[in-house]
Amino acid sequence: MIAVIGDSKGDVLGSSGCATSTSRKPADVLDQITAQVEAAADAASVKISKLDGIGIGVPGAVDTRSGVVSRAPNLGWENVPLAKLLRERFKKDVAVGNDVQVAILGEHAFGAASGAESAVGIWIGTGIGGGIILGGKLLRGSRGAAGEIGHTVLDENGPVCGCGRKGCAEAFASRTAMEREVRSMKGGRRVLEIMKEKNKPRMTSSVIARALKEKDPVMLEILARAQHYIGLLTGNLINVLDPEVVVIGGGLAQRFGEEFLKPIRQTARARLLRPDPEGRVRIVHAILGDYSGALGACALADDVL
Amino acid sequence: MIAVIGDSKGDVLGSSGCATSTSRKPADVLDQITAQVEAAADAASVKISKLDGIGIGVPGAVDTRSGVVSRAPNLGWENVPLAKLLRERFKKDVAVGNDVQVAILGEHAFGAASGAESAVGIWIGTGIGGGIILGGKLLRGSRGAAGEIGHTVLDENGPVCGCGRKGCAEAFASRTAMEREVRSMKGGRRVLEIMKEKNKPRMTSSVIARALKEKDPVMLEILARAQHYIGLLTGNLINVLDPEVVVIGGGLAQRFGEEFLKPIRQTARARLLRPDPEGRVRIVHAILGDYSGALGACALADDVL
Repeated sequence: MIAVIGDSKGDVLGSSGCATSTSRKPADVLDQITAQVEAAADAASVKISKLDGIGIGVPGAVDTRSGVVSRAPNLGWENVPLAKLLRERFKKDVAVGNDVQVAILGEHAFGAASGAESAVGIWIGTGIGGGIILGGKLLRGSRGAAGEIGHTVLDENGPVCGCGRKGCAEAFASRTAMEREVRSMKGGRRVLEIMKEKNKPRMTSSVIARALKEKDPVMLEILARAQHYIGLLTGNLINVLDPEVVVIGGGLAQRFGEEFLKPIRQTARARLLRPDPEGRVRIVHAILGDYSGALGACALADDVL
Repeated sequence: MIAVIGDSKGDVLGSSGCATSTSRKPADVLDQITAQVEAAADAASVKISKLDGIGIGVPGAVDTRSGVVSRAPNLGWENVPLAKLLRERFKKDVAVGNDVQVAILGEHAFGAASGAESAVGIWIGTGIGGGIILGGKLLRGSRGAAGEIGHTVLDENGPVCGCGRKGCAEAFASRTAMEREVRSMKGGRRVLEIMKEKNKPRMTSSVIARALKEKDPVMLEILARAQHYIGLLTGNLINVLDPEVVVIGGGLAQRFGEEFLKPIRQTARARLLRPDPEGRVRIVHAILGDYSGALGACALADDVL
């Protein structure tokens, strides 16, 4: 988790980070959040009482109005009234959003989609999350469930997804999907060795980077396949929403930047019904790095509090 | 083509219709439009000079701001300045929209999506067109190209689409796609016979209706397959946009209503990441019948003029 103290221009005045507790007890994570916010405030030499408000992005389903995290599988949370709990700790108003949605808010407020009236964020990580900005505002949807782009079908005969259905975009192109492919392929042994060497139980971006540096053929093939499916997803979203800009974020986009984007852009553009030879719809990578989410949470707080 | 004189409640005061000329000369179709508007005004006993304005939906790519039809393949039109030409004829302001987008506008203003803040229209005909209403307004997109839902990929290894790409929703589930399937299947002979009996060169809704009445097994199978893919498309759009209502329109939805909708709804709901057991996102068929588009063109004129 990363905490930042941001100003209205998106400059980071102070920050602090740590690995999120895996205890699955909300109280433990709340203690961490408290410590990180305090450390970031110290780093910025500001008192928490002087902050305009606090925003937070959570990896799960969130009701932004009530500030309740209804479900966050990676944290083991269900129905945690996070805004209320943090408000009691900090004596400050707290805005709660989904982690990917605050990341695209951050890129929209201060980063790659700055100034755009409409933008789509596609975040590639262990899953694929999304966020849609229309009319300069995050689209929440009638049930607060908009932006679940990772669970649109790209081929219903495709692999089983974490959600239990088959052929979602996430099942083709998330890091989890790529790792599953590596493990299923004979030639995937070298990548598994790198995971061991780096003492990583999961195929992280740094493992992928090492394998690519070695020009591991399995890694090259699997990355290209994931990029292809991300390109199809991007093309679908442009055909539906015709946004000014699509921002691709997450560890791979952050680490490989333009190199990661190029094949995605090519596949996406080839699928556009309304051709776009001048590239009026920009397809770019996120530029705020680790701070997309934290700065976006600041933007969220600024917007809703 | 259908012309209506509508009032502010969407009541049809008079109407007139004819088969659109296939001459591919804009002037011929303009003459028809003029005649139909005059006939509808006569039927409603109003003078054209008393109308608030004129709206029109065109089967093609339209720039609503300039009123130019950039491309309408079925009419053989390219860059026809339709608003200007009709303004000269009627001495009235004219608003031009895409045919499917005005149809969803019509259902939103006066029909199945009446009162909804957000709605998605899926129109199944010779192609698959779409329209998206957000914040009560039609989403145009940054290039005026939003809503091309028929060209989102459902399986890139699927059939070739009219657009030249593979596996678009339209290539799986439009009437054109269904007809192609029928022609390719051995058992499709009976459906082809019905087309001959009815003197229809294409597999229209009435041909499909007759085949279904006879419980033709090929027709039943192909319709079920199309409904399945429309269900996947519907599920994808709900996962992305989370609208209040999805309206399915076009000849098949109009003719078969709830019977056509039921399997679509079932497939779509099974794909929702955020389950919706109470059916908060309604999936319904259009209810304005032949008038969706014409009344929607009235709503468009009311909105933009």
